[in-house]
Amino acid sequence: MSDIDSLRDEMDKVTLDMIKLLKTRTDVSRKIGKIKKDVGKGISDEHREKDLHQKVLSLCNEIKLDESIASNFLNFLFNESIKLQSIGRQTHISIFLKAKSLEEQGKKIIHMEVGQPDFMPPPSTKEALAEVYDKGFVKYGPAKGLPQFRQALAQYASKKFNATVHQKNILVSPGARFSVFLAITSLLNPGDEIILIEPAWPAYKDCALNAGIKVRTIKTTLEKNWEPSVHEIKDKVNPNTKMIVLNYPNNPTGKILSSDTQDQIISIAKDNDLYVLSDEIYSEYSSDKWRSILEYDYQKSIVTQSFSKSHAMTGFRIGYAIAQEQIIDKMSNLQALCMTNVSEPIQYVAMRSLGSEISENPKLIKTRLDALSVRAKEMNLDFVTPDGAMYLFVRIDGSDGLKLANSLLEHGLAVAPGEGFGEYRDFVRISACLDEKKLMEGMNILNDVLRSK
Amino acid sequence: MSDIDSLRDEMDKVTLDMIKLLKTRTDVSRKIGKIKKDVGKGISDEHREKDLHQKVLSLCNEIKLDESIASNFLNFLFNESIKLQSIGRQTHISIFLKAKSLEEQGKKIIHMEVGQPDFMPPPSTKEALAEVYDKGFVKYGPAKGLPQFRQALAQYASKKFNATVHQKNILVSPGARFSVFLAITSLLNPGDEIILIEPAWPAYKDCALNAGIKVRTIKTTLEKNWEPSVHEIKDKVNPNTKMIVLNYPNNPTGKILSSDTQDQIISIAKDNDLYVLSDEIYSEYSSDKWRSILEYDYQKSIVTQSFSKSHAMTGFRIGYAIAQEQIIDKMSNLQALCMTNVSEPIQYVAMRSLGSEISENPKLIKTRLDALSVRAKEMNLDFVTPDGAMYLFVRIDGSDGLKLANSLLEHGLAVAPGEGFGEYRDFVRISACLDEKKLMEGMNILNDVLRSK
Repeated sequence: MSDIDSLRDEMDKVTLDMIKLLKTRTDVSRKIGKIKKDVGKGISDEHREKDLHQKVLSLCNEIKLDESIASNFLNFLFNESIKLQSIGRQTHISIFLKAKSLEEQGKKIIHMEVGQPDFMPPPSTKEALAEVYDKGFVKYGPAKGLPQFRQALAQYASKKFNATVHQKNILVSPGARFSVFLAITSLLNPGDEIILIEPAWPAYKDCALNAGIKVRTIKTTLEKNWEPSVHEIKDKVNPNTKMIVLNYPNNPTGKILSSDTQDQIISIAKDNDLYVLSDEIYSEYSSDKWRSILEYDYQKSIVTQSFSKSHAMTGFRIGYAIAQEQIIDKMSNLQALCMTNVSEPIQYVAMRSLGSEISENPKLIKTRLDALSVRAKEMNLDFVTPDGAMYLFVRIDGSDGLKLANSLLEHGLAVAPGEGFGEYRDFVRISACLDEKKLMEGMNILNDVLRSK
Repeated sequence: MSDIDSLRDEMDKVTLDMIKLLKTRTDVSRKIGKIKKDVGKGISDEHREKDLHQKVLSLCNEIKLDESIASNFLNFLFNESIKLQSIGRQTHISIFLKAKSLEEQGKKIIHMEVGQPDFMPPPSTKEALAEVYDKGFVKYGPAKGLPQFRQALAQYASKKFNATVHQKNILVSPGARFSVFLAITSLLNPGDEIILIEPAWPAYKDCALNAGIKVRTIKTTLEKNWEPSVHEIKDKVNPNTKMIVLNYPNNPTGKILSSDTQDQIISIAKDNDLYVLSDEIYSEYSSDKWRSILEYDYQKSIVTQSFSKSHAMTGFRIGYAIAQEQIIDKMSNLQALCMTNVSEPIQYVAMRSLGSEISENPKLIKTRLDALSVRAKEMNLDFVTPDGAMYLFVRIDGSDGLKLANSLLEHGLAVAPGEGFGEYRDFVRISACLDEKKLMEGMNILNDVLRSK
């Protein structure tokens, strides 16, 4: 036992020495922060971090320390700084909540900020709700989902996405958002990095930051037709990179990747053993150009899908993930830990809705998007005609999108500020989830406010 | 800029020195691990850790380093060791899954391992399911829950738990488990500690470990009537302690705390500014002795509740948390991040079930528990007559509960091994969620297997 005691004393001594160095590091870090503040923003530390990471890796090699322990440790140190950054960013959700509270005060608001179809879920869901009690789907079930539902989803997905999907490849989740959360949280570790193409739905970055994952963003531009630079993606990959997130048709731009770019991105993922998290919830709202990532049959891909947009079932909270069994197992372990299983009645209802005719919804949204596009062009707004999804992402030259969104609210129109999708301050997202008459009323309000400036 | 560069060089140098110390620490840690393995288990490091933590705190004081940064750092180092521990523990859930797969092979199993009422949800849920589509509860809603449901829950809780509860104090969640997950994950930080009284439902520890929280356990014993030692709790509190978890009526023992002990625990929490997470899902299944933690009106208490046991709605996944508004806000932020909102149709159904008569269920379970107790006494099994909940937690002298549970499965009986509730290897949990005839059949199988040893 005295052996152990002396070893423990040694370990304590080392720990205290580390704390002293931690103090030095914190002091230097504060000094740097102060200088950066004085000089002004915009000084990126990415190069320095990459450089330090390289030095650490070669030191690990020299002194024979496990690289993953060192990487984790570095991330811990980096995170101490990130925590100091504020996060008071406004998104489509904060505008939605503000609009709701204005409505409670009696104000009329045209909701063009949320991506929520205005039509009802298929009638089969009504029937299914009425029969689920007698069918007995009211008890605990497996964390991955009802076996018969997973089986039905596997068949559905195989057909829809031109791929081979088995029951074991399916995880049912309460909405695609939860699948995104599970994938990022359970497949990655603090210290890992993901590559995200912006503009993007805020949830990817939020889930990553919540899990202590570093996000490296690829900015795309309206000028380049929202096409990401493959060269830039390649350049962002480093030994810590573990995942790339795709979302096409894209929210907010409606962009679908060119076939060539998509092929090249998957090649980069394969070459570097990266997970590909492909959020394909707008697949029903897309042109023929679109192809699912499942077609590549890449073993580290995770596709997230949802009934929210395709079946107008936003409030039900039901979606699913498609991936290799080992990936599904990891995601399912976290789902079991935090919620046992997804609501059984809701799973039954979604299963019954799979056979419903839903092809009219995309046609309707397409017609509205076309009408919005015509009106936006008349108004001389800058945008790329969307390939799919349910939004226009328009530039408001010389305007701050956030200020504009707040001022529009006062005039009875809610739109989503571009800031929520990345650093797109002079953009707003306009959603086509209302009837054409309402949409045109909304565009008129936008026009009036822009002209009155 | 050269100022910044030289500071950054200094920071890099410090970081590399820290990595070298990390290597030394890892080597020493491995040596200690090896000796511990040779000597045998049972060597607790808690004293050493506490001691080191004290040393670190006084060093922080001396060199003027923020204590929270140092505590976080220490936790990072401790966690590296914890990660090496295996987690192949078997619980009531693994036995349940094993039983299910035996059933698929045609074997008949009496399920006395799960806490799932065998009766149906109230008829009002069937009506509510049939009408929810036309009522229009099918769209996105607020992350905290439907306002009218939260309002109804606030009234319900005020009456049931003898407390003042407002709508702002309610968070609706997909089951109490998710509220437990949200509370532990969003209120605590890695490096924080919680105090857990065992035997306990495994989810508390699982959620804490998942969030990088350190768990300090208070072991209670059958000999002392499962009463925790207030002195021991006081002794476990240190500057890192942030929460104590209570679960009464207890799963698995059925214990309700004596009034005096409960008062003293709340005093300790108040004196040390600890959160009290009180999981009260068995409150409907309890004797008059029980009092909700809400009665103390303590601003850092979080009560979790569920419709699973009270309304036999396990599969619906619906529950709620009751706490101060600031706490509800933090939990709700994480809920919004990972799932937007709880299923709206399910919220509506649960809201409609609030007026249902559910007092017969506890009476039924009580009758069964009494019958089980009589039979267990005849069999000379050691246990404390439960004050509530729906289980007997019995000692099987000289048996390994896990081996016994697996051997019972072969004889057609599923029970939950004590190991899942802490280090209670010679215990099994027997659930009273079947009709008396089935329960007696189960007890006969248990008797036969125990006698044949």
